[in-house]
Amino acid sequence: MQRVSNCILRKNDQVLLLKKPSRGWWVAPGGKMELRESILESAVREYKEETGISLNNPRLKGIFTFVIENKGSVVKEWMMFTFKATEFSGDLLEQSPEGDLAWVPVNAIPNLPMAGGDYMIFDHVLNKDSLIYGTFTYNENMDLLSSNLEAEGELIKKTKG
Amino acid sequence: MQRVSNCILRKNDQVLLLKKPSRGWWVAPGGKMELRESILESAVREYKEETGISLNNPRLKGIFTFVIENKGSVVKEWMMFTFKATEFSGDLLEQSPEGDLAWVPVNAIPNLPMAGGDYMIFDHVLNKDSLIYGTFTYNENMDLLSSNLEAEGELIKKTKG
Repeated sequence: MQRVSNCILRKNDQVLLLKKPSRGWWVAPGGKMELRESILESAVREYKEETGISLNNPRLKGIFTFVIENKGSVVKEWMMFTFKATEFSGDLLEQSPEGDLAWVPVNAIPNLPMAGGDYMIFDHVLNKDSLIYGTFTYNENMDLLSSNLEAEGELIKKTKG
Repeated sequence: MQRVSNCILRKNDQVLLLKKPSRGWWVAPGGKMELRESILESAVREYKEETGISLNNPRLKGIFTFVIENKGSVVKEWMMFTFKATEFSGDLLEQSPEGDLAWVPVNAIPNLPMAGGDYMIFDHVLNKDSLIYGTFTYNENMDLLSSNLEAEGELIKKTKG
């Protein structure tokens, strides 16, 4: 099972995002965990590779199960571990090996093209302190079919699509 | 990849543990995540199945990568998500389908037979508030070969075996 570790890096009212060439969708930089890595080691390594930046003291903010389904059957499932950081060192790469990097104003995020569930992830991580857990279900065209998010210490918030 | 979600339930100075029949080792009750589950849903469901007890407001305390290696090569890798709870409802099963249940004094844990890395997990989760990340490497006989633990907001603590 694929495991992805990424980080939402915020500097004042901006967030560093990566535009992936495949669909033109924006994501928080990160990537696949390697064997033997902890989720934190993976997030720090991937962030450095994709952006040139070293994260300082990233904090885990979300743990997500992603499901791709076709006619109700699970075609693929993976997990994503999302950190948040506000401190960093190092210089931004002029060009990331994975796409275009940009510091994006937080209030522009809702208008960027991205996976449907990612809007909820950015909204929570940028506006709340609690850790969230959840499952996002997509079809094979990456349309969001349903989500089920639960914040630590809060009531379950289910938004079935 | 197998994913296990479990919980350390503490009531005053005791912890509810499960003695697995295979090796006679004690563990925090929990089990394998099912498709589409979040780690929290899985921990709550497994805990209920194994103990009869419903966890209230469990908090994530550790995310671990487990590696079994043979001559330096990875034979198997899985992940474990460990919650902690102090509130619960329901009655303890007289007999768990997974082994023997017992409320064990916290100070007896270091003397119980269990996987080598689990001592470190119990020690941290029962004595510290921070979330920890880490990798435990075992051989095929489940002897602990090395561990690499990092607590959120603290310096890396490496203990190579």
